[in-house]
Amino acid sequence: MSGRLMVIGLGPGDDRYLTREALAALEAADALYGYGPYLDRVPARECQSRHPSGNREEGARADAALRHVADGANVSVVSGGDPGVFAMAAALCEKIETGPEAWRALDILIIPGITAMLAVAARAGAPLGHDFCALSLSDNLKPWELIERRLDAAASAGFVIALYNPISRARPWQLATAFERLGRYLPASTPVIFGHAVGRPGEKMIVTTLDKAGDTTADMATLIIVGSSETRVIARPGRAPLVYTPRSVEDAMA
Amino acid sequence: MSGRLMVIGLGPGDDRYLTREALAALEAADALYGYGPYLDRVPARECQSRHPSGNREEGARADAALRHVADGANVSVVSGGDPGVFAMAAALCEKIETGPEAWRALDILIIPGITAMLAVAARAGAPLGHDFCALSLSDNLKPWELIERRLDAAASAGFVIALYNPISRARPWQLATAFERLGRYLPASTPVIFGHAVGRPGEKMIVTTLDKAGDTTADMATLIIVGSSETRVIARPGRAPLVYTPRSVEDAMA
Repeated sequence: MSGRLMVIGLGPGDDRYLTREALAALEAADALYGYGPYLDRVPARECQSRHPSGNREEGARADAALRHVADGANVSVVSGGDPGVFAMAAALCEKIETGPEAWRALDILIIPGITAMLAVAARAGAPLGHDFCALSLSDNLKPWELIERRLDAAASAGFVIALYNPISRARPWQLATAFERLGRYLPASTPVIFGHAVGRPGEKMIVTTLDKAGDTTADMATLIIVGSSETRVIARPGRAPLVYTPRSVEDAMA
Repeated sequence: MSGRLMVIGLGPGDDRYLTREALAALEAADALYGYGPYLDRVPARECQSRHPSGNREEGARADAALRHVADGANVSVVSGGDPGVFAMAAALCEKIETGPEAWRALDILIIPGITAMLAVAARAGAPLGHDFCALSLSDNLKPWELIERRLDAAASAGFVIALYNPISRARPWQLATAFERLGRYLPASTPVIFGHAVGRPGEKMIVTTLDKAGDTTADMATLIIVGSSETRVIARPGRAPLVYTPRSVEDAMA
């Protein structure tokens, strides 16, 4: 008899973002799989085995977890944020599609989590208050030309843009190029939010403008939100500004 | 001395989606504001006043809540899903920008929640596993021509599309028109997911294709996800299919 695969979103930070459903699934697991730093956020429990792996080993991790479920265990695979947004749920589906036929019969429960853009947006105000998109800037898994086409489409149609995986040591120039590209469509004054390590030690929020965004430091723990031409900034005395995108749009762009 | 405004995402369904942070904020409130059915999900507590209102009274609700905070109360405004996604956080920011100067000094905490597209995606597999956008189909607050421009941009650039507010009694034709529009860019076989009342009584998931999507019933409790040309469906014996969008894209579109 086979067990159950639970794919769990931990949210982007400490346990404030954990849902009841995620907590229950963590408790029900015989084995935990995940990228080491995510697994470190989950308290140890007796009789639960732990299988940390590196952040480029998603395929191997998915494979090992599925084999373990097929052997009869209740297995939790943890993701930071939401498992369905640039994370483990798609990696597991890829393995199920190409793996042994028996894997299609497995019991799978995917448990959503707070994805980084929602946590960063909440800290900043309501920048995602109107139509928006989420785009990974990593060109490891898709051609850079496609990323540019998507930046063009999103900015010219007035979507607010959340940028995941903005920069890494192996991808040092892409982020500045993306800001330059967006500047073809958006005013220099467009608000840009850098949310670094939200909900974790070292959390830092920076609100700047598109023309200065290239000078702001980012890394893989940063989620960036680029406003639309409608996005507004409310200055506040003694407090961080509120950034929001109004719910309504006038006819001007149509 | 003024109180604190807490803007809380309850998630799309029952309390399985509540985060620890949201629970704590609900307990800390002197007063609760929200659309009646969302407020009904929050257990009553002594010494906590409740202020339900209708779903078209967002502006008036925001105004009343801000006055209450300025009077010194700890006020929670609850939203279904995430308060920053087509919900109360933007309505509150609009009131703060145009309201009394003193409102800018208020203590505000926005608490993210599981937004409907994440819950529906988790039920279906991983349709949002690659670049995606979220678009409200309501033309109450923006011109229909702009919605069409955004559908065109998103579909032609290969974004998976989550449709919020797909249909209502006052907007009966827009959804079918949107599917027709998307059919200009996407194959007839593109997977389309209808997630109805996810996490609530009467939950229903339907997976269909773009050419048949217009024949599927939807209402305001439905969240629709339209795949990209990359989105795949895995048939499973005795189980609902898994729908997912692979993490990588070949060079074909570039």
